[in-house]
Amino acid sequence: MNKIIVIGAVAGGATVASQIRRLDSESEIVVYEKDRDMSFANCGLPYYLGDVVEDRNLMLSATPQKFHDKKNITVKPFHEAIALNDKNKTITVKNHQTGETFDDHYDTLILSPGCRARHLPLQSDRLFTLRNLVDTDEIESFIVNENVKSALIVGAGYVSLEILENFYARGIEPTLIHRSDHINKSMDKDLNNVIFDELDKRNIKYRLNEEIADISDRKVTFKSGNVEEYDIIITGVGIEPNSDWLKSSSLQLNEKGYIPVNEYFETNLDSVYALGDVIETFYRHTKKPTSITLAWGAHRAAAIIAENLAVKSPNEKSAFRGLLGTNIVRIFDYALGSVGISEQELKDYNYGVVEQIQKQHAGYYPNAEPITLRVYFDKSSRKILRACAVGKDGADKRIDILSTAIIGELTIDEMRDIEIAYAPPFSSPKDIVNMIGYKAQSK
Amino acid sequence: MNKIIVIGAVAGGATVASQIRRLDSESEIVVYEKDRDMSFANCGLPYYLGDVVEDRNLMLSATPQKFHDKKNITVKPFHEAIALNDKNKTITVKNHQTGETFDDHYDTLILSPGCRARHLPLQSDRLFTLRNLVDTDEIESFIVNENVKSALIVGAGYVSLEILENFYARGIEPTLIHRSDHINKSMDKDLNNVIFDELDKRNIKYRLNEEIADISDRKVTFKSGNVEEYDIIITGVGIEPNSDWLKSSSLQLNEKGYIPVNEYFETNLDSVYALGDVIETFYRHTKKPTSITLAWGAHRAAAIIAENLAVKSPNEKSAFRGLLGTNIVRIFDYALGSVGISEQELKDYNYGVVEQIQKQHAGYYPNAEPITLRVYFDKSSRKILRACAVGKDGADKRIDILSTAIIGELTIDEMRDIEIAYAPPFSSPKDIVNMIGYKAQSK
Repeated sequence: MNKIIVIGAVAGGATVASQIRRLDSESEIVVYEKDRDMSFANCGLPYYLGDVVEDRNLMLSATPQKFHDKKNITVKPFHEAIALNDKNKTITVKNHQTGETFDDHYDTLILSPGCRARHLPLQSDRLFTLRNLVDTDEIESFIVNENVKSALIVGAGYVSLEILENFYARGIEPTLIHRSDHINKSMDKDLNNVIFDELDKRNIKYRLNEEIADISDRKVTFKSGNVEEYDIIITGVGIEPNSDWLKSSSLQLNEKGYIPVNEYFETNLDSVYALGDVIETFYRHTKKPTSITLAWGAHRAAAIIAENLAVKSPNEKSAFRGLLGTNIVRIFDYALGSVGISEQELKDYNYGVVEQIQKQHAGYYPNAEPITLRVYFDKSSRKILRACAVGKDGADKRIDILSTAIIGELTIDEMRDIEIAYAPPFSSPKDIVNMIGYKAQSK
Repeated sequence: MNKIIVIGAVAGGATVASQIRRLDSESEIVVYEKDRDMSFANCGLPYYLGDVVEDRNLMLSATPQKFHDKKNITVKPFHEAIALNDKNKTITVKNHQTGETFDDHYDTLILSPGCRARHLPLQSDRLFTLRNLVDTDEIESFIVNENVKSALIVGAGYVSLEILENFYARGIEPTLIHRSDHINKSMDKDLNNVIFDELDKRNIKYRLNEEIADISDRKVTFKSGNVEEYDIIITGVGIEPNSDWLKSSSLQLNEKGYIPVNEYFETNLDSVYALGDVIETFYRHTKKPTSITLAWGAHRAAAIIAENLAVKSPNEKSAFRGLLGTNIVRIFDYALGSVGISEQELKDYNYGVVEQIQKQHAGYYPNAEPITLRVYFDKSSRKILRACAVGKDGADKRIDILSTAIIGELTIDEMRDIEIAYAPPFSSPKDIVNMIGYKAQSK
């Protein structure tokens, strides 16, 4: 019988196993997961900590038992893949509950081991990262048992910002530090200023260009020389691919340890696929390589891998068209989203930029609030390279419209033609996306 | 000196005059408006009646004085164009304040006379239509002076629904009748059921397949035989183009009285353009003729006409690519939007349909509410023909994404590729638009 082994049971791994089973009732499917939980709602964890989501069960969308009973898929938690031998088509797995190590043979191997939180070289019982539900449970217990009243948030990526907001909502006084002056790095630096305004409005302290030098119980010494006391310290200082165990194999990794894949999510090894946060894929619009550690790509990849395993002939295969890294974060009253190549990657292009600040709907209709929409385009092709939107309401809609426009290969000028549904509560007869198109005419 | 005459000073006329002046500081621009007000916010009028918008000044975005002082444009209210003589390039204008009639010569004529409300063959002091600010002022005075407590709303188009909602908010008890069983006709009939639910929830009475037979002061006799009393009656039973005065000219009108235009908004007559509600234009995706009496097209046309009048050579001209009729209405807690050809026009195609009901954002995140998204596509080209969305939150975003997808000529299958910005408050890793694409695979 054909045997499919999947490494990792979160967004990429659990979804691909599930999608394969929809199309293939025959093959044996085994999923090895090094940690305790499968299919947890990682994007919801900050909201669970903030009691915005109160029911912990909602953080677990599936269990090994359910996958076994409903889908005939074997999911083995606490089983870590520690080596790949592609000659024999085996992987070596360590069962962390028994300490036992064994080899397992695959016909098809699908790698979705994800990324792990980078750790600062510091030791403290008060120091936590938030990457999975185990972390979340530990933080939750610590907050309750230690009666946590103050928190230091280190690093200002989107997860950190969500934790900060949720801690604040829960009555824990947060302080934010970031080692550079560019927080929330998916956004253009200056557009993050609303975040500082939101923090100031709530008297939440933050310091840029700041790092921890030392922790001694509650006492934190900073590189700036400041010494302050905190009940808990949450670090979000980047992620690293869980690919070290693959370095001894023939699997190709890029210089950062991500696994390059082609448009079928095939690696350089026969019958070995990869998806999720661990891969290097490519931008849809520029075709250049990128690693985007967000959920959309993992789900899309899962569907494509499953479909392609099920096709009879290679020319029926579905090809991935690439991604755009469309992303958004809410911080207090604001949403900040972007799509396309990063601000840093723009330097490779001869680009123009158009910006418009305009209310999300008819100005006379209540709660009209400005959105800032900024769109970068290639000056020769006029194609859109990147867009950012910031606002209290409707920024998500405009980023999604821009994402769809890039997928449809519209030019910056064709944004005049985007016909937004207008009624006073929703938009304007000349919506902000149209105004970007009009303004681009002179550029 | 070159003289440009514009007929009509609302969305189409005022905007085209203003856009021309931006590019042409030389020409004389005269705008004749048969009614009292220019540039009023017609889409806001129901909300002004409901006191959602309290400041009447917000309903008037420009005045003749401002247009004169800031733009050097002459706007003449109460001046009705009553004849066009294209041989002499003159129009005959009647000044309703003096009763005087005169001819005026144009080098360029731009027609934006709009549509008027259709009137039922009934006479009553309690009977009103809502089309402009004069109507609104009359209704407002009547409500206050007559201490209106109950209202009969006749016809259930989007304006009627907005009036109903706003009357209800203001404490006037509304009753709705509609002469067929398909209210809000831009939407698929069955998707309007949420409207009836919203009415039921508030004990608002409505009857379908009902018409007025007679009105005698407060007493309304219906064709069903019912006799009821109402303080005010607002009818919204369709619109008709203000083109009767053009029938004596050589200007081509279609059988319904709309003015056919080409992609430059040129009519059959030299130097005569038309835009706004009065025109017959074409769908972007099917190229078939249509008249869409919504704001977006009027604004887009105004920009294109102004740009083309300013270009030096004909091959620099901008062409209109057509419209999609993207529309939305809010009724109480719901928004209902659609885009593309009408439900009735689908019969000309071999179409498939895919529907998905899914929450607007992560299910565990508070206030998750289902959206129904229905997408029709051409079975041979797989291109999207029409889409409808209904929901409490996020229906507008999905309709705008679909509109952008149609403009980008994406197929139903490519909806899998639309990369929506995901965070728990905004969407799902597989958003409802993606699920439409996945579901379409089997169709």
